[in-house]
Order: sequence, then C-alpha cells, then structure tokens
Amino acid sequence: MPSKISDIGEKLLIKRLLSKSKNPRYNSFLDYNSIKSLSDDAALINIGDHYLVACSDMLLQSTHFPKEMDFYQIGKKIVTVNVSDLAAMGAEAIGIIISMGLPKNMLLTDFDDLIDGILDNCNKYEMALIGGDTNESSQLTLTGTCLGIVKKKNVMMKTGIHPGDIVAVTGPLGLAAAGFITLLNPCHDISHLKENVINLVKKHALEPEAKLKEGIILAKTNSTSSATDITDGLFSELGELIDANNNKIGFIISQEDLPIPKEVFDIAKLTGNNAMDMATTYGEDFELLITIPTHLFNNLKTQISIYKIGLVDSSGEIKIIDKKGNTNIITPQGYEHLK
Amino acid sequence: MPSKISDIGEKLLIKRLLSKSKNPRYNSFLDYNSIKSLSDDAALINIGDHYLVACSDMLLQSTHFPKEMDFYQIGKKIVTVNVSDLAAMGAEAIGIIISMGLPKNMLLTDFDDLIDGILDNCNKYEMALIGGDTNESSQLTLTGTCLGIVKKKNVMMKTGIHPGDIVAVTGPLGLAAAGFITLLNPCHDISHLKENVINLVKKHALEPEAKLKEGIILAKTNSTSSATDITDGLFSELGELIDANNNKIGFIISQEDLPIPKEVFDIAKLTGNNAMDMATTYGEDFELLITIPTHLFNNLKTQISIYKIGLVDSSGEIKIIDKKGNTNIITPQGYEHLK
Repeated sequence: MPSKISDIGEKLLIKRLLSKSKNPRYNSFLDYNSIKSLSDDAALINIGDHYLVACSDMLLQSTHFPKEMDFYQIGKKIVTVNVSDLAAMGAEAIGIIISMGLPKNMLLTDFDDLIDGILDNCNKYEMALIGGDTNESSQLTLTGTCLGIVKKKNVMMKTGIHPGDIVAVTGPLGLAAAGFITLLNPCHDISHLKENVINLVKKHALEPEAKLKEGIILAKTNSTSSATDITDGLFSELGELIDANNNKIGFIISQEDLPIPKEVFDIAKLTGNNAMDMATTYGEDFELLITIPTHLFNNLKTQISIYKIGLVDSSGEIKIIDKKGNTNIITPQGYEHLK
Repeated sequence: MPSKISDIGEKLLIKRLLSKSKNPRYNSFLDYNSIKSLSDDAALINIGDHYLVACSDMLLQSTHFPKEMDFYQIGKKIVTVNVSDLAAMGAEAIGIIISMGLPKNMLLTDFDDLIDGILDNCNKYEMALIGGDTNESSQLTLTGTCLGIVKKKNVMMKTGIHPGDIVAVTGPLGLAAAGFITLLNPCHDISHLKENVINLVKKHALEPEAKLKEGIILAKTNSTSSATDITDGLFSELGELIDANNNKIGFIISQEDLPIPKEVFDIAKLTGNNAMDMATTYGEDFELLITIPTHLFNNLKTQISIYKIGLVDSSGEIKIIDKKGNTNIITPQGYEHLK
C-alpha cells in the first residue's frame, strides 16, 4: 500500500523536505545558514551587521483551538506562537503578517474579537500588524509570519552547544498542560482546587505569553550557546537540539531540578495524569530552553530568572536522573503533527 | 440577527481591520507607510536605502485548487501567487516561508510532488525556500510568505497616480478564465478547439507564471506612477487603485484596446460565456496593471512588452468606452472572498 504522510510524521517530513532543498545563494541577502535554519526556529536574512529574522506558524481550529478558547484569545495566540520563535533567536519584533481562512458564517463580533486579540498582543510585544489577507475556509485557519531583527553577534541558534554546558529553562513547566487537562476533562472533580489555581493554569493554556523580553536579554548578554522554545515539549526539543548538533551532544537532566509547580502535581493527582509527563512531553509551555557555558551561568542568573535543569554531555542521548538517583534514557517525545 | 462576515465580504473586512489598527512606530525598521501598505500588495520594512518587502497569501483546497490541478502544480502555485505580489512592488525575491496544513491521509508521493513544485518555482524565481512548518488539516492549506528587496527610490505602490497617466497591462487578459472554464465545465463541446489552444489556456489556469522579471524592469526604469497585480480581476484592481488614491482618480478604459486573445473569444462562444467578463472580472491572470506618466510611455514600451488600455482621469469612477463609442460606468467587480 502506498505510504501516507501520517506513516512518517512531521519531523521526518521536514527532513525529507530539507533533503530535497539545495542551498541556492541567489543573492547576498540570504545567509549561508538560511536553508539550515529551516530546521531552526526561524530563517535569517543578511542585513549588514544584523539578521532579519522571519518565522511562520499556522494554527487550525481543529488542532489548536479548544472550544474554551474565545476569539480574542485565538487572536492573541496566533501572535504569541510566532513571537515565541523570535524570542528563541533573541530577536526584537518588527511586525507580523496574518493570513486568515475564515468560515463564511463567522459572526462579525467574533471577527472583531479576533482582530482585537491580534492587535492587543502586537501592542504588548511592541510590533505592528503589517499585512495579511482573508479567505473563505470551512474551519478557522490562521497563519502568522513574524519579522524581527537581531545583531548577528547576538543571534541565538539551535547549534553551538558544547559538552559541559549547563541546560536551563526560563520558567515553570507543566502549567499549560495542567490548564488544558482541566479544560478538556470537565468531568474530573477539581472542586478541591482553589479558584486562583484554576485561573492560573487556564491562563497558561488559553493566554500564554511569549518570552520575548527574556530572549532579547539572553541574546544581549551573549552568554548562551543555544536557545529554542519548548512549545512542542521539553524532551522533544532536547531531541531537536541533539539533531541540530549532529548527535555530538546529549543531555543529562535532573528530574529533581525541573521547575514543576505544586499546582501541576495537584492537578496531575486529581486527574490521573503524570506530572512529569505534563512538564516534559505535553508541550504548550511558552518557555525558552537554553544552554550556557558553565563559567557564564552565575553571572547570567543575576540578570534573568533561569532554572538549571541539567548538563550537556557528548552521548547523543537524553538521560534523566530520577529522584532516587537512577538513570533512564529517554526517547524524545512530544507533540508531533501528522502522527 | 447578528451580522456575519459574509454579509460584508473580504474588502470591507480588511477596511474594518485597518480602522482598528493604529500606526505604532515601535522601531525604525517600520516604514511610516507600513500600516497603510496593509492595503497594498505587500508590507515594507526600512533597511537603509532599501525596502524589505514582505507579503503573504493563503491557498485552500476548497477555494483555490480545482481537482484538475495536481500536487506539483499546487506547489508551483503557492510560490507564484506570493511572487506576484513582490512583482507588483518591483522587488527582487529573496525567499519564501511555507506553512502547510496537510490531510493525514495524504500520500507521500503527493507530498513529494508538492515540494518539487515549490522548489522548482523557487528555482525559477531565483529564491530559496527558507522556512516553514507542517500541521494536520482536514483540507490542504498552504500559506506562503515571500520576502523580497527593492531600492526605496524604485518601489512601486498603489498610490501616486495622476490624472492624465496612461493605464497599461503587461500581458493578455482572459486566458486563465478560459482555462478554468474549459476545465470546470467538461460537458462543453470544445472538440472544435485545437489541442494547442486547450493546452495554452489550461497552462494559464493551472501553471500561471508571476511577472517578476517584468516587475523588476518596470521598477528600475522608474517610469510607473503605480503598479499592482490583477489576480482578483482587472476591474476589481482598478477599484482598489481608486480607493488607494482616495477617490481622486478614475479610469477611462477602451474596450477595443484590451488585449483579449482570439482563444478567449473562441472559448467564450463555445461555452456560453462573455469574453469581456472573462478578461476583466474573472481574475487569475497573473499580469501587472500599471499607470505611467504620458511622456514616459513610449520609452518604456521599447524596454518591455506593455499594452495601453486607457487613461487616468479625476472622476473617481471606472468608465469603459465600448466598441461603438458608448461610455458605461462600471462598478468594480471581481473575485471577492467571503461574499
């Protein structure tokens, strides 16, 4: 039977695409690495001593928007997911172009809410809505393309990691998972939870915020050896980093050091989920994952809130040391489209 | 009853969006006109004495791909529609980012054909595929975002037209319509038509080519007072130009001068269609519509193939002079999404 794309999944599809792409250097604006950065968070265009950073993300109603997410939140999210890719490169935001596929019977008030969400987040990230088009679609489909700018000497990539580097994240893990699980399984009895806990996790799920300021600060310190966002899940992204560095590095992650808030454990228990999985494979936490040469870590920690979660080695594997001191080798998992 | 977006249609939706957008000038990279260029073919970013040009177009299976269009042709088309917007600004292409929504059961060979079409057209327009992502979608959905570059002194916009200017197009009108009508109505008896005619019109419908080289030449001559592409139809775009120039200009179009090939008349007759409508409102002809100060026209005509179709006046209307010399006032019509 002929192969379907779901037989191989998103990541192998992208690899297949990369293997077909040559590296045409038609003009001086294309960085030598531009094609390589197909596998990075964004593409880089040469502009003197800066890179123009360009990235694109598509959100589809059937895959990305739970019914609890309102149109204002959907508008905010299409901006956030794109800005998060800029953040991972350390770029400042310039503007976003949004192409919309809209159902014909969409209410005008819903359209207005969608636009308000887009514009409010443009305002938040100090960027402009600079273009777009509208089309008719059976389901709400939004593609954002974000443009940003970063000095070449400051840009953060997925490559450049060395054994011995410290691995860190910019914030707590698992809150978005806790929010989605609470929202998507209303039959669970969460009446024991305080309202502020429910609001906290719902906010992380429905109105996540991109770590743009943090990315810009990290880039300006020139302290990181790599950066990416972890919206597809921590373990999945660790696997991507190993790939991007040609399997010459690996990770030793300390389970005890993962910044998993109490709320995540509470909701895991109440809903029969595993807090560790929620924090490492569920995804949707809009935090940055960075690696830092050891001698730069303490100074960086005085400038920005970061959580050390492990070390880089040269194994090509992801090892996790659990609370009892046992080592487990992890197969990268996370949300993967088309699988 | 609450209003739906289909009550007002694409053009008023975009106007509604524009009225909500402020013009935040968060950084020096955003041109003063960037927000205004939401209504132009592309957005402009300040890069010294150049503009980086960015545009985005979404294509959806249900709206844009007739079943006769194969995956290779679909791949080519997502590049062409985006490059056409660069052509309208006079920009050279740098690269394209493509976000894909793919049905889970899509065959891998179809995916490969799609990518081959994308890459072959990237090659044709001397640009690179610089990024993208894949998602699961019930219908094939492709969003391309194209980046280009043009000297500020050469950029072509929709604004800047003056009464007295000559109106021209870069090529024949109605061939794409003839192709689609032939494809979509197989019950029509087109057996009288020669195979090369059928192939010609099918090629215009299924594998259109963007006038990128022509756009670049036009921009470098600095002879045009405006430019846009006419993929939504000639009359529709004339209406857009009147809008963009604050209703201070209008057009007098000579029906006799419209470059409508014999093949369009033949197919119109055989299929019970109106050749004039096919050439002016159907859309999908990837030609450029330009205005040129009269004294520059003859010199420009020696450098590039252009067809004079009328003159600019200050009426705020589109008038068409028919072959008998009668004047009709036209309400701009063309393909409009969501209406």
